[in-house]
Amino acid sequence: MAEFSPGLEGVVAAETAVSEVDGANGRLIYRGGYLIEDLVPVAGYEEIAYLLWHGDLPNENELDTLRQQMAAARKLNKSARGTLLAMDAAIDPMDVLRTVVSAQGASKALTKPSLEEAVAMTAVFPTIVGAAYRRREGKEPVEPRADLGHAANLLWMMEGKEPDPQKVHLVDSYLVLLADHGLNASTFAARVVASTGSDLTSCVVGAIAALKGPAHGGATFAARTMLDKIGSADNAEKWLTEAHGRHERFSGFGHRVYRTYDPRAKILREMAKTASPELHKTAARTEEVALKILHDAHPERPNATNVDFWASVVLTGAGIPKELFTCVFAISRVAGWTAHVLESLSDLRIIRPASRWTGPEPGKKPLQLAKR
Amino acid sequence: MAEFSPGLEGVVAAETAVSEVDGANGRLIYRGGYLIEDLVPVAGYEEIAYLLWHGDLPNENELDTLRQQMAAARKLNKSARGTLLAMDAAIDPMDVLRTVVSAQGASKALTKPSLEEAVAMTAVFPTIVGAAYRRREGKEPVEPRADLGHAANLLWMMEGKEPDPQKVHLVDSYLVLLADHGLNASTFAARVVASTGSDLTSCVVGAIAALKGPAHGGATFAARTMLDKIGSADNAEKWLTEAHGRHERFSGFGHRVYRTYDPRAKILREMAKTASPELHKTAARTEEVALKILHDAHPERPNATNVDFWASVVLTGAGIPKELFTCVFAISRVAGWTAHVLESLSDLRIIRPASRWTGPEPGKKPLQLAKR
Repeated sequence: MAEFSPGLEGVVAAETAVSEVDGANGRLIYRGGYLIEDLVPVAGYEEIAYLLWHGDLPNENELDTLRQQMAAARKLNKSARGTLLAMDAAIDPMDVLRTVVSAQGASKALTKPSLEEAVAMTAVFPTIVGAAYRRREGKEPVEPRADLGHAANLLWMMEGKEPDPQKVHLVDSYLVLLADHGLNASTFAARVVASTGSDLTSCVVGAIAALKGPAHGGATFAARTMLDKIGSADNAEKWLTEAHGRHERFSGFGHRVYRTYDPRAKILREMAKTASPELHKTAARTEEVALKILHDAHPERPNATNVDFWASVVLTGAGIPKELFTCVFAISRVAGWTAHVLESLSDLRIIRPASRWTGPEPGKKPLQLAKR
Repeated sequence: MAEFSPGLEGVVAAETAVSEVDGANGRLIYRGGYLIEDLVPVAGYEEIAYLLWHGDLPNENELDTLRQQMAAARKLNKSARGTLLAMDAAIDPMDVLRTVVSAQGASKALTKPSLEEAVAMTAVFPTIVGAAYRRREGKEPVEPRADLGHAANLLWMMEGKEPDPQKVHLVDSYLVLLADHGLNASTFAARVVASTGSDLTSCVVGAIAALKGPAHGGATFAARTMLDKIGSADNAEKWLTEAHGRHERFSGFGHRVYRTYDPRAKILREMAKTASPELHKTAARTEEVALKILHDAHPERPNATNVDFWASVVLTGAGIPKELFTCVFAISRVAGWTAHVLESLSDLRIIRPASRWTGPEPGKKPLQLAKR
């Protein structure tokens, strides 16, 4: 039988043209062969979603059409609205997202995943996250607006006031950067669900479930929490040295695939300077000290700063509270999840790996049952 | 880079002592090394769930305690009740299950999966399925009863009348047989979600999402639908020959892992004789003809009848409408899902496979954007 590779590290689980993580060279390639650093200065989230779904960037007409489709799909349906209101306002927003997305996509009969559904699913995420946030804050949800783009609409539905263009730009750039990333765990979860012939909502709900974990989407929250504990650039060395002494892991460092600097982290690091100057100072010093400590402890490991570290600073600058970081990650990644599901339909084969038995030899243990 | 094995066929994705599918010898082994054919005549579902969670069969006290814990966890909480009532009554019961389980397990802060949660999650599934069924039928949901076992309680909450002991026995045996099955797609989905450090509800919701697919849990419904179309033993040869001529796949035949007769199918086949004599006659003739056609077309393939084929007959005999087949599968498998998640915690490593890029060479395509 085949070798066991824990975490399926290095095991090829799918062929894809949606994105490629070239870890050795520190490159992230989106569909069509575009490098992330070429896309982020010029393309917005809607264009990137279109690219991931279609394989080409949209022309002006195509982009307008997509924007109209998304604007038309932003409202919750009756099941989803009722579900949202049934949830305790203090529930983790990721649990609200998982549940309300499941309700929004619940249907009477099984449907094959479609592009139209992918667009609608992507469009409605900010509505759910905005409403979950406002309910948490004791405020009434705000209706989505058709005249705003995807990023602006998220801030509008969170804050209920005209969004600041600078912050919209930060959110939009973040959404572009995080929209897809090879076979990360949540995308892989979506593909596992898709492989059984299940519907698109089920695929996306499975992906949300996986993204929630602190080793995946939850890592941005953890990075910001660590920066909060450090508090200031002056305190970084002391705090990190002590934490290292307690064998604590540094949040925001290390990645399975990148052997060099994550290109997304590099872009976000630059954005962070103006997005959140004070937190940037703390983060830059934290990075410097953490990399030195990690390198001294394990010179053989490529312990580069990961995307979560700098994303936490940029999202803070965009006015996103850290409790919503994982949700905003989901708002971005849903384009990638759905693009992967749609791609996988062309050659659907159930993902059903083997396992290695570690239990006792079968049929040997006497069968002793309680009196019934 | 490693070979690409579509569907991860033959790739070892985990070590496990929860169950082992010995496909070559047609054996299904549950935790502790017990063979399924030894367990099913003597053990009920609660004992099997205990076995999968703990590694040993319960003694009388342990079984009593588990029964009490399950009885105490059968009611929906406020979020879940509100969510259930918010859903259109005509929604697919699997979508109701996915959504209401998500609501029932929604929490304010991330928790590490625990045995207590596994018990509670398993206990509440029949409540949700029973309520979804009754709402579909235009009836009020019935409250769970503490004095009934797991299988009996399901029938009670569906029918609202004292359950027939014969039918309870059929349901209970089915639940025992389907409770775990190696790294099937839904269990694997649960393990992928767990690998990110996500909570137990997220793992189970991801598993429900995967189980829904017609290539997985939905297959029992498909098998029964095919038997309905065939209608009678006399019509089997004509119908199957014509369907084969149209290149239709026969539902209920073939399995990735078993090279010989699925031991669960063998047990269910025997049970089906008395469970549903009329449908058994149609099914037995269908099996005979289908295996002959499949063997003639592909003599090299081990085209044995799978568990879904005979499960569809037994569940019919137990009075389960086919629209609930996938849900009843979930009611059984949740014990296995949660056992796998709990087992995986001892050595958690994110499941993040590699992919093979099939897109164009990176950085070559000119970047043309629509006017913004």
